[in-house]
Amino acid sequence: MNNCIVAQSGGPTPVINASVAGVVKANKEVRHYDNVYGGINGIEGILQKDIINLSELDDNDLELLKYTPSSGLGSCRYKMKDFTINEEEYIKLFNILDELNIQTLFYIGGNDSMDTVSKLSQYVKLKGIAKQIIGIPKTIDNDLFYTDHTPGYGSAAKFIATVALETYLDSSVYPNNGVFILETMGRDTGWLAASAALAKLNGESVVDFIYLPEVKFSKEEFLKDVRNRFKEKNKVFIVASEGLKDEGGKYLTETDSADKHDSFSHVQLGGVGLYLKDLIIRNGITSRVKVMELGVTQRCGMHCVSQTDIDEAYKVGKSAIKYAMNGYHGFMVGIKRLDNNPYNIETFMVEASKVANNIKYFPLEWINKRKNNVTDDAIEYIAPLIMGSTNLILENGIPKYMKLY
Amino acid sequence: MNNCIVAQSGGPTPVINASVAGVVKANKEVRHYDNVYGGINGIEGILQKDIINLSELDDNDLELLKYTPSSGLGSCRYKMKDFTINEEEYIKLFNILDELNIQTLFYIGGNDSMDTVSKLSQYVKLKGIAKQIIGIPKTIDNDLFYTDHTPGYGSAAKFIATVALETYLDSSVYPNNGVFILETMGRDTGWLAASAALAKLNGESVVDFIYLPEVKFSKEEFLKDVRNRFKEKNKVFIVASEGLKDEGGKYLTETDSADKHDSFSHVQLGGVGLYLKDLIIRNGITSRVKVMELGVTQRCGMHCVSQTDIDEAYKVGKSAIKYAMNGYHGFMVGIKRLDNNPYNIETFMVEASKVANNIKYFPLEWINKRKNNVTDDAIEYIAPLIMGSTNLILENGIPKYMKLY
Repeated sequence: MNNCIVAQSGGPTPVINASVAGVVKANKEVRHYDNVYGGINGIEGILQKDIINLSELDDNDLELLKYTPSSGLGSCRYKMKDFTINEEEYIKLFNILDELNIQTLFYIGGNDSMDTVSKLSQYVKLKGIAKQIIGIPKTIDNDLFYTDHTPGYGSAAKFIATVALETYLDSSVYPNNGVFILETMGRDTGWLAASAALAKLNGESVVDFIYLPEVKFSKEEFLKDVRNRFKEKNKVFIVASEGLKDEGGKYLTETDSADKHDSFSHVQLGGVGLYLKDLIIRNGITSRVKVMELGVTQRCGMHCVSQTDIDEAYKVGKSAIKYAMNGYHGFMVGIKRLDNNPYNIETFMVEASKVANNIKYFPLEWINKRKNNVTDDAIEYIAPLIMGSTNLILENGIPKYMKLY
Repeated sequence: MNNCIVAQSGGPTPVINASVAGVVKANKEVRHYDNVYGGINGIEGILQKDIINLSELDDNDLELLKYTPSSGLGSCRYKMKDFTINEEEYIKLFNILDELNIQTLFYIGGNDSMDTVSKLSQYVKLKGIAKQIIGIPKTIDNDLFYTDHTPGYGSAAKFIATVALETYLDSSVYPNNGVFILETMGRDTGWLAASAALAKLNGESVVDFIYLPEVKFSKEEFLKDVRNRFKEKNKVFIVASEGLKDEGGKYLTETDSADKHDSFSHVQLGGVGLYLKDLIIRNGITSRVKVMELGVTQRCGMHCVSQTDIDEAYKVGKSAIKYAMNGYHGFMVGIKRLDNNPYNIETFMVEASKVANNIKYFPLEWINKRKNNVTDDAIEYIAPLIMGSTNLILENGIPKYMKLY
């Protein structure tokens, strides 16, 4: 018996299950492993032996899984300690894998998850354990190094651009419209906010300003932007990332409350839109300011998925099996963009330790001179990732999704 | 020359332009009017002679208009005073209509707009003016009397049910998930919140509780509901209407601030979700509570439109021309449900004065005994309205919409 296990970690995306489906499907084709297990709630569940057998899924199930959003195997935000501090957990984990004859662990996640892949791989190497740990990228944040982009980003970008266009139309109907602020996710990076630049009507971008965490936020410049544009057009459409920081490097919405930190010490954000609204009103530009937080739909909105993103998430899952067969371990599957016209990618392998705990920021050269929008180069980079929509199977008028456990 | 004019009033919907397209298309077929004009920003714009000619649109334009969300002709929240108080406005309006040889005004809107239709019709009758005023229903709120339902509601309901399902999946991924609160629009009525009951996974509703404005909100019962369900399942998914009122009949989020009223004296709401979150945390049920306000996407989300709703909005627009030809005035086009299986409707005429300033509440007999959810009868009523999805024309990965002015 030679089995493998796949698990998911970190925040959901609409396409994270497509990668699981890819792993299971590729193994059906090559029959490298006898069984593909699924670990429930990532490492945290595997340590509790909360494991199901995914090899029982037939092709119809896999198609349905591919088009089901959010982490179908559940998730965790469990940070493994270094084995020099707590080896017990490592021993427990590898005993469980041994028990189930599991040769390979595929771990789908972002930077924190690649930290887990890296730590486990180092341990395996050091102890001479004959197991492979392989990372599969996912995050709507698009903040992983080395890979051209991450599965999950294209769908979030498509949703953001679509909703930006629709809410622009909604916010333009009255003779006096005021200011509309759309708040996107993006704790550290502006990739998500930037995607609103793709919202176009008759070829023209509808978004007036996009503020990214990569640029220190200046109240003065912001108020100048908004005041001038409001004078000129009597309406302003603003997109702001939740992670905007002031000139001192502090989140605009930061508080000192200790319970606002998750176990990875990230500050829980929210409220940048309201902060900006208050700023505009207090400075007398207009009292007609509306704020909309996009909320979690940007990371689970399968109903507005990018088919390109689905296809790529599936592909990195399938490739992971191929790389495992080739003996890789301690690596993450990356995406390399070969061409933009026609758009074409291939997968490659990159050491997980290089990806772990690193953040790929939105390039400063893709931000305009006024630092209140993005350039055409940015749009050219994002555009192919949101292409293609899909006809979901509907059941009673809403999408049919599946439950794995 | 014999012309007509169509205009839109009140809050947008995803399908309000389909009714405009229906009016223009029907007139192309029957050639009853020489020109179909469009009034920009409703009565407010017509009074400024802000008028365009819609007869210039070809069939391709009309198709694109049909699938463009939000009020393409702009909107207003302009309340006409009674003519006994301010007749000047009436005289001005009819002079402008005379100038342009406009025989018929089609006014697309909700209760407030039907008040305008009713007032103008009474004036026309009294003064013996040979003009017709005809109302076309639209509102995501579904709160118009006499009509079985309103165009706009089906698409909002489909969006709410879809996002409820997707956010349920998103909010269920961790071992400890806590409480998720989805806040819908619905100032006075629970039709929108109720539609979340259609969010089903494997045939089971995913929403634990739905709180409607028709039921006086009881903190004690709410806390009992949430506490018990949280104990039982370790997660609770709640849908709440923005318009929840306490036992004294006051909005849970009401303040005394005067600027929170629009010109129709409606209180501007928001924040019920945060109110409930605070209640849950302060009462020690759990500190893991997430709130998502659906925001304006529920009234402009063409990317998740109901094809049934589009078809019906188009049909009431087309019917309006037929009823105008038959000499009706002072009436609104209504929808009559003939059958549910297969679903089938026809249009009819109802006096606008009966519809004006009335509110059709969600039926109490469709609310369960615990008053924390809706019955199967409610689901049966809503289900056909969200059927069918559409393949929007995409341009660079996002829907292609049109601008009329």
